[in-house]
Amino acid sequence: VFGIIRKVRNFFAKAWDVGVDDPRKIMHCLKVGVALTVVSLFYYMRPLYQGVGGNAMWAVLTVVVIFEYTVGATLCKSLNRATGTFLAGALAVGVHWVASQSGERFEPIILRSSVFILATSATFSRFIPVVKARFDYGAMIFILTFSLVAISGYRVDNLFNLAQERLSTIVIGGSMCLLVSMFICPIWAGQDLHFLVARNMEKMANSLDGCVAEYFKDSESDEESRKNFQGYKCVLNSKATEEALANFARWEPAHGNFSFRHPWKQYLKIGASLRSCAYCIEALNGCINSEILAPEFIKEHLSGVSTRLASHSSTVLKELAHITKTMRRSSTLDFAIEDMKSAVEDLHDALKSLPSQLEVDEKKTDPITQPTSIPLIEVLPLITASSLMVEITTRIERTI
Amino acid sequence: VFGIIRKVRNFFAKAWDVGVDDPRKIMHCLKVGVALTVVSLFYYMRPLYQGVGGNAMWAVLTVVVIFEYTVGATLCKSLNRATGTFLAGALAVGVHWVASQSGERFEPIILRSSVFILATSATFSRFIPVVKARFDYGAMIFILTFSLVAISGYRVDNLFNLAQERLSTIVIGGSMCLLVSMFICPIWAGQDLHFLVARNMEKMANSLDGCVAEYFKDSESDEESRKNFQGYKCVLNSKATEEALANFARWEPAHGNFSFRHPWKQYLKIGASLRSCAYCIEALNGCINSEILAPEFIKEHLSGVSTRLASHSSTVLKELAHITKTMRRSSTLDFAIEDMKSAVEDLHDALKSLPSQLEVDEKKTDPITQPTSIPLIEVLPLITASSLMVEITTRIERTI
Repeated sequence: VFGIIRKVRNFFAKAWDVGVDDPRKIMHCLKVGVALTVVSLFYYMRPLYQGVGGNAMWAVLTVVVIFEYTVGATLCKSLNRATGTFLAGALAVGVHWVASQSGERFEPIILRSSVFILATSATFSRFIPVVKARFDYGAMIFILTFSLVAISGYRVDNLFNLAQERLSTIVIGGSMCLLVSMFICPIWAGQDLHFLVARNMEKMANSLDGCVAEYFKDSESDEESRKNFQGYKCVLNSKATEEALANFARWEPAHGNFSFRHPWKQYLKIGASLRSCAYCIEALNGCINSEILAPEFIKEHLSGVSTRLASHSSTVLKELAHITKTMRRSSTLDFAIEDMKSAVEDLHDALKSLPSQLEVDEKKTDPITQPTSIPLIEVLPLITASSLMVEITTRIERTI
Repeated sequence: VFGIIRKVRNFFAKAWDVGVDDPRKIMHCLKVGVALTVVSLFYYMRPLYQGVGGNAMWAVLTVVVIFEYTVGATLCKSLNRATGTFLAGALAVGVHWVASQSGERFEPIILRSSVFILATSATFSRFIPVVKARFDYGAMIFILTFSLVAISGYRVDNLFNLAQERLSTIVIGGSMCLLVSMFICPIWAGQDLHFLVARNMEKMANSLDGCVAEYFKDSESDEESRKNFQGYKCVLNSKATEEALANFARWEPAHGNFSFRHPWKQYLKIGASLRSCAYCIEALNGCINSEILAPEFIKEHLSGVSTRLASHSSTVLKELAHITKTMRRSSTLDFAIEDMKSAVEDLHDALKSLPSQLEVDEKKTDPITQPTSIPLIEVLPLITASSLMVEITTRIERTI
């Protein structure tokens, strides 16, 4: 019994954390409640005494199904739903008409085979990547509406009435969702994506700093820095989130600093290059935890240069994050990049002078000297990656 | 106009590829068609003349909404739908009863505020990770059913009739889906996950081979090997797919070699360690493409050892993939691991002897000698990671 109580308490503690972490989520829940209540008030005038099956229920259904967390997702779903319903309805009416013209014997055969063929092909279309990304929900609604209308035994003239009523209720439900989600504390997918990318840059900068500091300083790192240092792991797995957000952002109207055709795809490119940096940091991290320790004197030889390099490149990243956040060019970025480049040169030089040092000190060290160069060398691709990112971002600056 | 025609042709070419790549997808589409047609035939006896809103439509709706690609997903959705509908219906009837007891004035207030409160809290519950992973759909259906029933103006005694009818149609639709998806060419999420992990192991082995071969051989690689070599990129991004499959696999009954409580979580662990190997290969790949070239003689010195190491570790990976596929212990694995370990030792020795070689040849080479050791050193964490994976897999062997 105590175990169950503990589990329940844990569950609520987690739920509480979710709410505290992001108050917008609570706002979203309230918005759903408001939209539902308003729609139900709207139908208070003509109560649903005709049955739950009455057409008014479609408005409620639309609100529940369509209302998503971000404005983009809601827009995407509502447009998909409207188009899917409309297309399928029109097609079903056409098939009905053809079937009714072809005599009593063929009518059910035509209707049922049309359902089979269209359901099969629409389901197949959901596997095609382009359709899956943008029109998945529309295809499902298409199948649903088409089979409902085609199977129903209505006459064609009745159908028009029905279609009109259904479409109007869906429009009411959908526009209610859009109004609430766009005008009461809107949560824009585009903005989320923007800040996600900026935050990821900051996390990478912190990780890079932490990683190199951890390697060269012997002092035990405290909990706080440890947590910062692990930030790159979020970046590793951010691909799915970024793609979903970019996909929804495409549907959103102009808001804040973002125009309608904001180049959302560029964010995906930045995200990809950030991830490739994160892979490097992951590899770097592997070296830190490796059992082979480099001799102290080499560490000292390279410590200064590489710490400087790391701090310069993390400055670049932070500067980039700042630029992305404020969406304003800053002149300090160019200086920071120059600093980073000269730091790369310094590291190169330090590496070049290493063999001659090795020769001098050879007698008093054990021969495993190579491992020391790993973290430094691995910083190199990281730097090329981050300078690549700089390029991409400057390209974006132009498009903004 | 030609542009549009080309686009349309491209679209159909892509669609064709999707079908050819995985014939099971076409099978799935046919299955959806069959399920829909059967359900509609079922209702041919009592046609839907009462209106599209007649309860029979819920069977069609259930089929369209619930039918998913894998058995696990279908089961998950249908159980969620059934439980959600049942709970919400029962709760709504209770609220209705309370409201009807409290007089005409308070009735609408109680009903509407209950909709608001429950919709808000159910939406919030969808943000909690545990609920999101498993009961997301159920929570949505809960909101939907509760608001439909609560808003409808039915008397309580009518409601029981309605609930019974609706539940029976949902059960009919749901069981139809389950029968079709489980007995006609079933696609098991568990099996998919199993083969995905095995295939990822093979891809990693090929990439590892290709990567080291590319570095040490100067010959231009052809298209085929290039493609093999890029295989690790799939592994990098496989996290979301693996988690979704593992989530659905949990719902599936025993099938093939898998029992009901098969340790699906272990697959996620293997997947994670495979990914950490993939990160290393990514870093290795960065070194191959780096501009700093190692001097030839060092390359030659290490070429033999590291090629052997790579081939041994890829043998281990292939052997693991084979074991995973056939689910049978093989004795060759242990030998392969021994070989790999001794290859690691050889590489260590080769690295140790490198500085003395350096000394001898110092005059005739340029001083940038460090970079050569990168790819080899980076193989090290890869090997530790893969041996870690070996451990995990042997642990799984025990649980299977």
